Amino acid sequence: MDVTRVLARYVVESRPEQVPEPARREATRSVFNWLACAVGGVEHEASVAALVLASRFSGPPEATVVGTSQRLDIFQAAWVNGITSHVFDFDDTHLRTVIHPSPPIAPALLALSEHMHMSGEDFVHAFVLGVDVACRIGNAVCPAHYHIGWHSTSTAGVFGAAAAVGKILGLNERQMCWALGLAGTQASGLRENLNTMGKFLHPGHAARDGMTAAFLAQSNFTASERILEAPRGFCHVLSQERNLDEITDDLGQRFEILVNTYKPYPCGVVLHPAIDGCLQLLNEHALSHADVAAISLRVNFLVLEVTGKRHPGTGVDGKFSIYHCVAVALIDGHVGEKQFTDARVLDTLVVALGDRVTATVDPAVGADEVHIELTLRDGRKLHKHVEHALGSLKRPLNNEQLESKFRDLASDIMPRSQTEELIRLCWRLPGLKDVSEVARKSAVEVEHPG
Amino acid sequence: MDVTRVLARYVVESRPEQVPEPARREATRSVFNWLACAVGGVEHEASVAALVLASRFSGPPEATVVGTSQRLDIFQAAWVNGITSHVFDFDDTHLRTVIHPSPPIAPALLALSEHMHMSGEDFVHAFVLGVDVACRIGNAVCPAHYHIGWHSTSTAGVFGAAAAVGKILGLNERQMCWALGLAGTQASGLRENLNTMGKFLHPGHAARDGMTAAFLAQSNFTASERILEAPRGFCHVLSQERNLDEITDDLGQRFEILVNTYKPYPCGVVLHPAIDGCLQLLNEHALSHADVAAISLRVNFLVLEVTGKRHPGTGVDGKFSIYHCVAVALIDGHVGEKQFTDARVLDTLVVALGDRVTATVDPAVGADEVHIELTLRDGRKLHKHVEHALGSLKRPLNNEQLESKFRDLASDIMPRSQTEELIRLCWRLPGLKDVSEVARKSAVEVEHPG
Repeated sequence: MDVTRVLARYVVESRPEQVPEPARREATRSVFNWLACAVGGVEHEASVAALVLASRFSGPPEATVVGTSQRLDIFQAAWVNGITSHVFDFDDTHLRTVIHPSPPIAPALLALSEHMHMSGEDFVHAFVLGVDVACRIGNAVCPAHYHIGWHSTSTAGVFGAAAAVGKILGLNERQMCWALGLAGTQASGLRENLNTMGKFLHPGHAARDGMTAAFLAQSNFTASERILEAPRGFCHVLSQERNLDEITDDLGQRFEILVNTYKPYPCGVVLHPAIDGCLQLLNEHALSHADVAAISLRVNFLVLEVTGKRHPGTGVDGKFSIYHCVAVALIDGHVGEKQFTDARVLDTLVVALGDRVTATVDPAVGADEVHIELTLRDGRKLHKHVEHALGSLKRPLNNEQLESKFRDLASDIMPRSQTEELIRLCWRLPGLKDVSEVARKSAVEVEHPG
Repeated sequence: MDVTRVLARYVVESRPEQVPEPARREATRSVFNWLACAVGGVEHEASVAALVLASRFSGPPEATVVGTSQRLDIFQAAWVNGITSHVFDFDDTHLRTVIHPSPPIAPALLALSEHMHMSGEDFVHAFVLGVDVACRIGNAVCPAHYHIGWHSTSTAGVFGAAAAVGKILGLNERQMCWALGLAGTQASGLRENLNTMGKFLHPGHAARDGMTAAFLAQSNFTASERILEAPRGFCHVLSQERNLDEITDDLGQRFEILVNTYKPYPCGVVLHPAIDGCLQLLNEHALSHADVAAISLRVNFLVLEVTGKRHPGTGVDGKFSIYHCVAVALIDGHVGEKQFTDARVLDTLVVALGDRVTATVDPAVGADEVHIELTLRDGRKLHKHVEHALGSLKRPLNNEQLESKFRDLASDIMPRSQTEELIRLCWRLPGLKDVSEVARKSAVEVEHPG
């Protein structure tokens, strides 16, 4: 079975009208959520470092760094916007593969829209295809691929960026195979970097390299046409298990964008059930954290694997600590970016409450599920079973919740009136004549500190 | 054992005078050989495609694309020069790991020399350290790493580029750890692309990304400080076997540059014993290919694994076909770039003679060894045992042979007088006040077709 060729042919032959309306709508929501994260993340020190470096060596300043007044060449802009959109860990999640689909793909397309004309319809179409390519490849190799140590956001994301950009560039079937071949040979990203800025580099890297793959393929820069299925290709080398049918089954019928999700809290998605449940308990029982003697959780195995750090040392670490997140949720009654400063993570009250959290893996507990038992100082025990966390597939954020997330993220970056205009513009994405309007509207007039 | 930290500390603390003279000399020979390949490869269609793309999106034109009149920003120049130096498969080889050490490292340093002042002593020092880092990491994971499908030139090379550039940038120990962490998370390159232009992308990709890693680390862009040894770090995720002692043993005493080798023929190094032996037989017996009825080879296992393609379809394929190489050596009496055109590979006489080659794996045969039996049409049988091929560690190319390789490669690219000046300049590398002189002298005044 020529897996790579079948996938490439699908991408090349797909027409915009073949994307069903729900997929188009979910793509718009994904891009909306992505843009909010990119705007909001732009003052993070990792974003500033990347932007400063990119600015020094940028080519023709065609493309907007969203949330700034800077323009860079399209490759550097895709790189920076990929990084800024990931710094808060607030971007979208394809739960089955833990891929964040938008950050490697949306920045590449948005940058390209300022280089060549691109309608909203074409943007959404290419985006849907890119997400499908990335997540289908992720489905084929996850969880083994993720488990061994690969950060699937970038390893699979680079294919998505290559396919999306290649679609806009009008690659033919063979060129699309090469684009995938060149993407696969640039696939990288180790989970060892998860609690560092290194993680933020991953989607930027994938966006830029996927774009490079597509542009090279357009120039007939050849590559393997069997990068996915070959014995020394991506799926065999980067995973000990694989099911290649996941890549080709129901192409054009099943769209992975439809199972994309958006986070209500800017931290590891596996922590969301516990945060959601603690906030519910606080509200339902009008509790204060001072009432709480102990917190006992029964959790999915990923919680301890990914977020088992008992005493995080930095804000970034705190985003991957079940102990910090539960404590800060109970103390602050809210979990936003301000709950992940270095100071908040080292706060003695937060640390002390975190020490009273125990988490036990229960094989019966799903990834968006948790059982919470709060023991109060008066001896009472409160229970909460979160079957599906807020933001999960079963309880998605609605458009109003996404808007309020956008406003929160943009509040320190751009004037309120511009935020509202940008929000309105984003919802109109599929019908826009020229997507570069979104990029231009996301530029901030004042000089960015970077 | 903090493998990454120990390695980083060594690179940071090493002083130029600690590099022994033989290592300095071999570094100069490596850079000499690399530059010859980069100049010679510049008109290859993969080089032209890369150069055209880079030119469109380049930033400040500070750095020379060797063999052309073009200047690009230092990242793009490193990328293009990394690609051009690999297109002929004529670059250097660290035999134990099959890493081509120079193409990911030398382009990064040369480009940087046009951005900030760099003496020949500092260049050679950083280069020796970069090669040591790349090849030691390669030693730790090869052959398992290569066998499973990784192209070690880029996967290990990116660490070498990061270390070399980081040394010039003056990173401190922690920043050097981050540079390695950011390099490892960008490590990629699949052998599935070996018979395509995708392979040529690998060293360019590694040069640019290693440079990116070092520059980001300089800005305190953090990363894992245990990228090599961590359970989800490079050596565990990208290899099923590993020996981390290879990375840290005898640092500063044993230099991997001393076991670097240079190819006399522009094709897979595992083919060199057979080519060498056939050319010797031709000369010793004044044979013509028309005399030859059959060729029987006993070869190292890698020959059939890497170069077992019976009927290559393109010139590039021919570089990885024992059948083509033996046939064309016997017919042409010489193996240079002209023996790897598409036309030569499809030539009926070459194909017919290739069909009379049989190759059998003999576990007792080393990688630089071959046993040849030629059966002549008159019934005679001639034997040749090549114990160590020309260009191997035991029979290295001498400086005169490297010079003649340089002249051959440069002959279609630059005027003879310039070639001679460049050759003289290159030999003076360790004593140059300013290495950018080499870059400038490698620029060609006439407009390059790309």
